[in-house]
Formats: sequence, C-alpha cells, structure tokens
Amino acid sequence: MEFTVYLAGEIHSSWREDLKEEAKKLDLPLSFVGPMENHERSDHIGEEILGEQPDKILRDDAASAVNNLRTELLMKKSDLVIALFGEKYKQWNTAMDAGTALALNKPLILIRPEELHHPLKELSNKANVTCTSIEQATKILSYIFETE
Amino acid sequence: MEFTVYLAGEIHSSWREDLKEEAKKLDLPLSFVGPMENHERSDHIGEEILGEQPDKILRDDAASAVNNLRTELLMKKSDLVIALFGEKYKQWNTAMDAGTALALNKPLILIRPEELHHPLKELSNKANVTCTSIEQATKILSYIFETE
Amino acid sequence: MEFTVYLAGEIHSSWREDLKEEAKKLDLPLSFVGPMENHERSDHIGEEILGEQPDKILRDDAASAVNNLRTELLMKKSDLVIALFGEKYKQWNTAMDAGTALALNKPLILIRPEELHHPLKELSNKANVTCTSIEQATKILSYIFETE
Amino acid sequence: MEFTVYLAGEIHSSWREDLKEEAKKLDLPLSFVGPMENHERSDHIGEEILGEQPDKILRDDAASAVNNLRTELLMKKSDLVIALFGEKYKQWNTAMDAGTALALNKPLILIRPEELHHPLKELSNKANVTCTSIEQATKILSYIFETE
Amino acid sequence: MEFTVYLAGEIHSSWREDLKEEAKKLDLPLSFVGPMENHERSDHIGEEILGEQPDKILRDDAASAVNNLRTELLMKKSDLVIALFGEKYKQWNTAMDAGTALALNKPLILIRPEELHHPLKELSNKANVTCTSIEQATKILSYIFETE
Amino acid sequence: MEFTVYLAGEIHSSWREDLKEEAKKLDLPLSFVGPMENHERSDHIGEEILGEQPDKILRDDAASAVNNLRTELLMKKSDLVIALFGEKYKQWNTAMDAGTALALNKPLILIRPEELHHPLKELSNKANVTCTSIEQATKILSYIFETE
Amino acid sequence: MEFTVYLAGEIHSSWREDLKEEAKKLDLPLSFVGPMENHERSDHIGEEILGEQPDKILRDDAASAVNNLRTELLMKKSDLVIALFGEKYKQWNTAMDAGTALALNKPLILIRPEELHHPLKELSNKANVTCTSIEQATKILSYIFETE
Amino acid sequence: MEFTVYLAGEIHSSWREDLKEEAKKLDLPLSFVGPMENHERSDHIGEEILGEQPDKILRDDAASAVNNLRTELLMKKSDLVIALFGEKYKQWNTAMDAGTALALNKPLILIRPEELHHPLKELSNKANVTCTSIEQATKILSYIFETE
Repeated sequence: MEFTVYLAGEIHSSWREDLKEEAKKLDLPLSFVGPMENHERSDHIGEEILGEQPDKILRDDAASAVNNLRTELLMKKSDLVIALFGEKYKQWNTAMDAGTALALNKPLILIRPEELHHPLKELSNKANVTCTSIEQATKILSYIFETE
Repeated sequence: MEFTVYLAGEIHSSWREDLKEEAKKLDLPLSFVGPMENHERSDHIGEEILGEQPDKILRDDAASAVNNLRTELLMKKSDLVIALFGEKYKQWNTAMDAGTALALNKPLILIRPEELHHPLKELSNKANVTCTSIEQATKILSYIFETE
Repeated sequence: MEFTVYLAGEIHSSWREDLKEEAKKLDLPLSFVGPMENHERSDHIGEEILGEQPDKILRDDAASAVNNLRTELLMKKSDLVIALFGEKYKQWNTAMDAGTALALNKPLILIRPEELHHPLKELSNKANVTCTSIEQATKILSYIFETE
Repeated sequence: MEFTVYLAGEIHSSWREDLKEEAKKLDLPLSFVGPMENHERSDHIGEEILGEQPDKILRDDAASAVNNLRTELLMKKSDLVIALFGEKYKQWNTAMDAGTALALNKPLILIRPEELHHPLKELSNKANVTCTSIEQATKILSYIFETE
Repeated sequence: MEFTVYLAGEIHSSWREDLKEEAKKLDLPLSFVGPMENHERSDHIGEEILGEQPDKILRDDAASAVNNLRTELLMKKSDLVIALFGEKYKQWNTAMDAGTALALNKPLILIRPEELHHPLKELSNKANVTCTSIEQATKILSYIFETE
Repeated sequence: MEFTVYLAGEIHSSWREDLKEEAKKLDLPLSFVGPMENHERSDHIGEEILGEQPDKILRDDAASAVNNLRTELLMKKSDLVIALFGEKYKQWNTAMDAGTALALNKPLILIRPEELHHPLKELSNKANVTCTSIEQATKILSYIFETE
Repeated sequence: MEFTVYLAGEIHSSWREDLKEEAKKLDLPLSFVGPMENHERSDHIGEEILGEQPDKILRDDAASAVNNLRTELLMKKSDLVIALFGEKYKQWNTAMDAGTALALNKPLILIRPEELHHPLKELSNKANVTCTSIEQATKILSYIFETE
Repeated sequence: MEFTVYLAGEIHSSWREDLKEEAKKLDLPLSFVGPMENHERSDHIGEEILGEQPDKILRDDAASAVNNLRTELLMKKSDLVIALFGEKYKQWNTAMDAGTALALNKPLILIRPEELHHPLKELSNKANVTCTSIEQATKILSYIFETE
C-alpha cells in the first residue's frame, strides 16, 4: 500500500525537499505532491497562461485560479495532508488548505514552531497531530507502516 | 424562508453588531451566529469549564476544544458564512473556518480591506463574493430576498 | 409537509408568476424561490454592490458572483427544481442549473417547447419528467399531495 | 500520479485531438475520455442497439439514454473536466455536463471564445479557470505536474 | 420532535389507513407519506398529465416518471421507511424502494407474512427490523417516543 | 481504463457466462463480479460457515448475512451494475440490488423480457438503459470504449 | 435556534435527568433524546414486540434490532452527542455510538471519570471535548448560546 | 480484484498473524492493515515522537493522536473491517472503530466469544456477520472470491 501526501504551506524554504529526503532514507512507500514551489512563477502563472491582466488584483486572481485548481485536484488525490507554518508571512492560504483538508476528512499533521502555538491553537486542536519539526513528521509517517 | 448566517472572523471590533443592525433595518429574515465575542472569555473558556491546566499550551488547547465544538455545531446549522479579515492579527482561525465553509459547500462572502488582497488571493478566488465593507455584504444578503 | 421549489430558467417571460398563480389556485403547500427576475438588475448587480468594474467581462463576472451565490444558497434549500427553456437565448445558465440539480439529487421537472427536444435530449433523458407547459408542471406538483 | 480528464463539449471539430496531441508532446501523464465523437453515430446509437423507435423524440431519448450512461460512468472516473463551447449550436448538453462536474466537485476548465463570455458568465464564474484556447488549457494541465 | 414516515408497498389493501389509525390512537407525533394509493390513477397519471402515449410501454414509462418523482421527493423528506409486502403481485417497486431507503441510510422496517421469508431473506437481513403485522410495526414506532 | 461490472440478478441460468464471453470476444477491458452462482451453496452458506441454525428462518438469515456482505463489498467496488430479471421467481433481491445501485449513483443497465415491463416500469424508468437481451447489454458496454 | 442532543451511555444512573434539569435551570433551548432508559424493557423489547424468541442470543438480537433502529433515527436528528461512561459494565454500545457520532460528523462531548482515561484515550482524543462531570458538560452546552 | 482488510481489536494475542496465515494458505488476494501490534510501543509512541509529556493523561493523549491518525488513514483505505473482541480488557477502542466502520459504510465482520454476546448485542446486530473464530472469518473472506 502506497500513500500520497499533500504538503501544504510556505514555499520560501526547502522543507519539502528535507521531508522527502527523510522519507526516502527510510524507504517509505510515499509519493508527495504540493503547490508550485517557485514563488515568482506561482504569482505570475495567471498572466503566463491567460495573458496580461488589467491590474494587480486581477493578476492575483488569475494566478489564484490556476493555483487553486492545482491544489484542489492534488489534495483530493491525497491520503494525508501535512501543513507547515513558518515564522514569516500571513500564510492564510495554508490555514485555508488545512481547513479544507479537515473538512474533506483527510488526516492532518500540523508542523509549526512552538512560539506560533497561540494563533494556531484552534487549528492545532483540530489537526490529528501537531509537531514542531520535519523530523517528527517523518517519524509519524514512518510509524504508519511499522507493525512492531 | 429564513436563513442562518455564521459570522467568522476577528472579535476585536464591533463588525458583527454593525452587520446585524444593517440587516435589521432592512428587515431581512436572517439569524446570525458566531464565535464567543468576548476575547478574554474565549481564551479562558477551557480553564473556566475544565479547571486549571498545567501550562499555556494546554490552556490554549482546552479553550480551543470548547470553541471548536461551538464553531463546528453552529457552522453546520448555517446556510451561509461571512468571513471578515481585519488589518491586525494572524487570523489563521478565520482562514481555517473559511476553508471549512467552502469544503462543506456553504456559500462564502469574504470581507477584507483591499490592501489585504495579495495574501488572501486564493481564498478570495474561492469565495463566492469578495467585498470590502459591511455595507456591501449586507446588500448581498438583501439581494437574496429581492425579486425585482 | 411543505416543499420549496426552485424555478430555474429564462427571466424574459412571466412564467414564474403563471406557475405560482396556478399553484395558489390549487392551494398547494409550496413556496417558490428563483433568480432575480429583473434582467437589467441581474446584469448590473455586481457593479451595484461592488462598484464600477474595469471592463465588460469583469462587470459580468461581478454580477455572476452575486447571482451564483444566490442560486447556490436557494437551490440547496429547495426540495425540487423546475427548469424552463424558452425559444430564445442561449440559456446555458439554465442548463448548468439543471445539471447541478441532478448532481445534487434534487428531483427535476423540465419544461420546454417540443421543437427544442433535440438539443435538450440528454437533459430530458435525465430529468424526472419532461413536459411542455406550465399547466402540466403544476399538475405534477399537485399530484405529489394527492392520495386518491 | 496519473490523471484522467473528461473532455466535454462539441463534437463537430477536432479540438479533442488537438488537445491530446499537445499533451502528448509535453509527455503529460494524462489519459483522456469523452463522448462518442462520431456525431451521426451518437445520434443513432439508441436505435443501433435497442432497435427502431416509434418516432423522432423516442429515437432521441433512446440515444440519450446510452450516451448519458457513458458520460456518467466516464465523468465519475475522471479527476478533471474540460468543457469547450464553440460558436455554433445550442450545446446545452455541454452546459449540463459542466454543471454536473461542478456539483460533483470535479475541477473544471472552461474553454470558450471571448465573444461567448456574456451567455456563459455564470458558468465562467463557477469554473476553476476560464480560457480561450486549447493551448492555454494544455498549459494549465502541464502546470499541475511542474514544481519549479 | 416529529418524524415523517414513508409507507412503501402494495396499494391494493388498506394497510396504510390501518397503520395511521393505530398511530393516531397512540397519539404519536408522526406524519405519513407514500405513493398514490388509487391504483388506476397511479397507472394512468402519465397520460393524465402528459397526454396520450403511442403504446403501452410508453404509457407505463410516463406514469413511472411522475410516480418516481413523487417517491424520490417524499422519501428524501422522510426519517423512516416502512415497506410492506403482501401475498400477491411482483412488488418489485417495493423492493427497489426498500433498497433505495437502505442506501440512503433511512431506517427501514419490513412487514411481510412469514411465508414470504425465503424470497425476502436478503432484504430482511438488511432491514433494521422485520415483522409480520401492522400492529408490530406500530409498537416499534411507539417505542421510539417512550423512555420508560 | 478498466471498469468493474456487478452482475445482479437470477442465478438459475448461464446469462453471466454468456455476457462475459461476449465481452471477451470484443476484448473489452472489463472485469465482472457478482453473487455466488451455485444456488444450493448460496442458500446454505450461513450454516456452512456459522454452523447449524435452529430453524429455517435463521438458516436463511445466516446465509443472507454472508451473501449481503459479499454483495455490499463487490457492488461498492463496481463502476456499473447490470440487473437481469428472468421470467421465474420473485427476484426481490435483484430489485433491492438495483435500488441500491441507483441510490449509490452507479449507472444501471436493466435487462428484462418485454413481457415483464409493467411490473418493472418504475425500475425501468430509473435505470440508465433498459434492454431485452445480453447482446444489447454487451453492445452498450462496448460503446463506452468506442470513439468513432 | 434550538438544538437536539443525543445522550448516549449507561442507563443505570439518573445522569440524563440531572443533565436535563441543569439545562432547564439555565433555560437552554435544547431538547434531549436518547435510548430507552428502563433497562429491563430495553432488554426485552424484542420479545415484547416480535414475540418469544428461540434462545438468549436471538432474544438479544431482536431487542438490539429495535433499539438500534431507535438510536439510528434519533442520532441522525441530533445536532450534538454526549456520551457518558460510568465505572461499571462493558459499555461497548456507548463506544460504538460515540464512534458513529464522530463518523457522522456530529460534535461529541465525552464524560468519564478520570480513572477511565487510559482505556478511553483514543475516544477522548477524537471527541471534541472530554470532561468529568454533568456540570462541566452543561457549561459547555450553555457556552454555545452565550456571546459575551 | 484485490481487497484491503482492516483488522481492528485487541493487540494482546496473535490473532492477526493466524488470520493472515489462513488467508495466505488459501491464496486470497487480500492485504491486511491494522494498528501497531507492539502494545508497549503503541502506548509510548506519543512521547517517542513528540518528546516527554507533563503527565500520564497527556502521554496517553499524545499516543492516541498518533495512533488515531494511523487508524483513520488505514481504515479509509480499507474495503472491509474485521473487529475481534477478546475476553479481557475494556476494548472501547475496538468498539469505537467498529462504530466508525459502520458509519463509513465499510462491511464489518465481528469476531467474539459467544459468552460476550450480551454486551456486544447492538454491535452484533449492526455488523454484517458475527462469528466466533478466526477460521469462520477466513471462510467468509474466501467466499467473496468463490463463484461456485
């Protein structure tokens, strides 16, 4: 049995690569999907595909349309969602994705630095497990396949 | 026909009262529900009911458990969700609630100041309507009941 | 027991009034909902609420956002959908509403002039009943409440 | 990960072949399904299988029964729906399919010439992305698999 | 709390009246719905509403379309389904209704003479309770409201 | 793309073998599942596994429990259901299976001799396609995979 | 807005009456439903309605059929489930009801003496809130209706 | 066709190994999943991954969070659930899992010693089949793949 894991959250660090590498070391039968990790491209994908837009809001809206289609498709195909919050940025998109995952009954692992606990307390309470590092999240993934 | 509207979002301003008043002036057949608006109490409800907790994180978790139960129950009974983002605070809870509303197929109106457009672009693209003021949101609510 | 009926379809004739009147004569315990019937207002509701839009496409999009929210909310509260196709206009919105109703497992009555049978054959085959007049549709509504 | 894409819409042009070819050039892991593209056969499939029917309406109904079974089965197996509207014909079937896709929570890409924007405005507002060409649609499909 | 009960099954005896009377005597807060009980009218409702049909099969199909719409609407509004099988007729419609009720997760009470046990064994095994008389079914309904 | 087809209906003739053979000749990518076709064994499977039962009704109930588990599991894994009614026996189980298939939104093909039309009229009206022979059903299956 | 609360759990103490009284004192707009509280009658309801059964297991099965129908119907009509575990008995039925409530997405409050924490740890982790007394549960119910 | 079976229940005996071995002997196309079978590790997995916890209740809660994530993920991927009750321990977790399986419409086989019938009577009545041994359960699994 092989599972697909959607990696929601910030695209300004290499956390996805770190997690994939950890999983690979342990030879876990997992495949990972997630958003476009090139931030520039993610922000301009609307104009890249649909052509120049009249203003900033419409450029954002065109990009979001394409990115949301991607997220919707990939999250539905996933068995598990991991959402990581970093210390910078508003990351409302990540919180929305986490809420969606929970409402779709996808098991959810939340990774966040402990200092972010207070603003994330409701999400943390609804997540299956809340942890603070990539390493802990990988151990949880590994545990799913162990029987002893 | 009467609808129930869940008002998600910040509890540091009087926006809920403003919106309810507008709706009342127009005599709209709506009832409104939402989170505990007393911020202090919302943060301490876990200890108020379940007794003193060992540390800050557990106090937050106890409070969130009670507040999440409330939100889950009330949102499920609602026909429509309005989520308002203000200019301060992280408001991840609001973004999670909006994601939940969308995944539960509840129509969603997003209210946010235009300067917050960029970090909210994905949510804005998924919301049924995005607007910038209580007044606009009320007009949308009113329009549902008009036929001419 | 009282039912709510969503009346999808063209807003250029008075068919909704005719049907409501027929239902009233028979004293059927039904309430009717549907789209904004003032065509001008329906087309301009986006700008009326959200302010002037940069171009024609965006004006249409703003109006559709508000009208779609209305339809989504009202159709979900309905027990039955009646979709009427007239002889003019493209009426793709009506066909989309009918497809939505079927996918939401709402019983669907299709009213259309017989000459439109060919282009509507797939929809007709999926509708619960296809008929050609308001009078026939009203008889079907009435039959639901009769026992002899 | 491989996705299945349902191609809804007109069967009078070669747009499906064009799109498949584009996807093939890019080596996208996609498989495509859709309606019977031979228009004559699609219209006569009822009589071809079930025998001669008493009149035109019943011939249409028999054909639609078989075609609707096909669409229902294939759309349910699909991860994504693309609906294309051309400049001719009523295409109510396409609009119904698009409405069904949305109600089944299948991500939807709408392709239509810009001059059809007004009659398709509600559908456009509900689609994940609206574009005007096969090429744009293919770029969206491609983007789903790119990470940089 | 008041419940709605759909009474599926044969329309050749007065069992519905008997059951309603029993429930009335006990003052149970129940309302009952079900099919058209006038057998003649049920068989001719297609032609009564939609006009004369070319042959017997099409007359049956027209009648079934109207009757199925009625059943679908009423069963969805019901909290509980009671299906009664008598000793005569094929009653495939009753078995289909019972299967539908179970798939819709409506609690199901099956009433049948004991001699019909063998052909109804699968349905009996899936029903919540199988009994042999109106009186037993009424006692079950009554028990729902008792606390001692 | 490969589909699974559940073959509901009588187990007193070889219709399943006939249909599988036809499908094989056409090289259709289909796999078929269905009930235990050995009638004796189907009736005694309860006692075969669970041991002797006190009476006939309980023997039937034990057998039905095992057979219903099988049907439930296999039907859920199927993409399409074919239900065949023969001229003998009550076949209420088949009608219940067909009702379940429809409520689970599985496309349904009904095969029945034309003389059984009247008692099956409601089921026929709800099935995607009603036909009279294995050959017709196979042609429908084949059509799903053809594009020209 | 008024809610219905299903009270799952032991029927050997008066906890339901205590909780209802507390809710009444606070004038909460709640109605409460639950299982038959007369233990003797609950165990014999199968024979009371369906007649004498051949042995103890079948008597239990007949009683469970009737009690399960009741629970299924009432739980579906409820907005919230409270499950109480006492210090005696196996109470597997309560645990099953709690699991059902969670899978049906009903918010769940778990009441249990702290010494039972270990065997109930998984259920406690999935419940919205776990508490130890009727009084705490009532405070949670009350909080839902408070806004300050 | 291959099925996945979730084995819920006690982790103090080797019943899972026995059942897998039986299935292997019969060459059944089944894969089995289930909880961590090392009891010590299951109880300490929270601290193993998330670090030392302040007290016993929180240690249990951390372990349950990880174990519940595992169960939720694996049960959703399963086609069938087998729940075994042994003679010792409270096993409320097993009863909750069984209730979840039923609410998720997963077919359920219950294995329990006959002396546990009374406390398990409601669960037994809702399970597809109740039996007393691994051998009987294996025969049921085998029967699903037999056609004669």
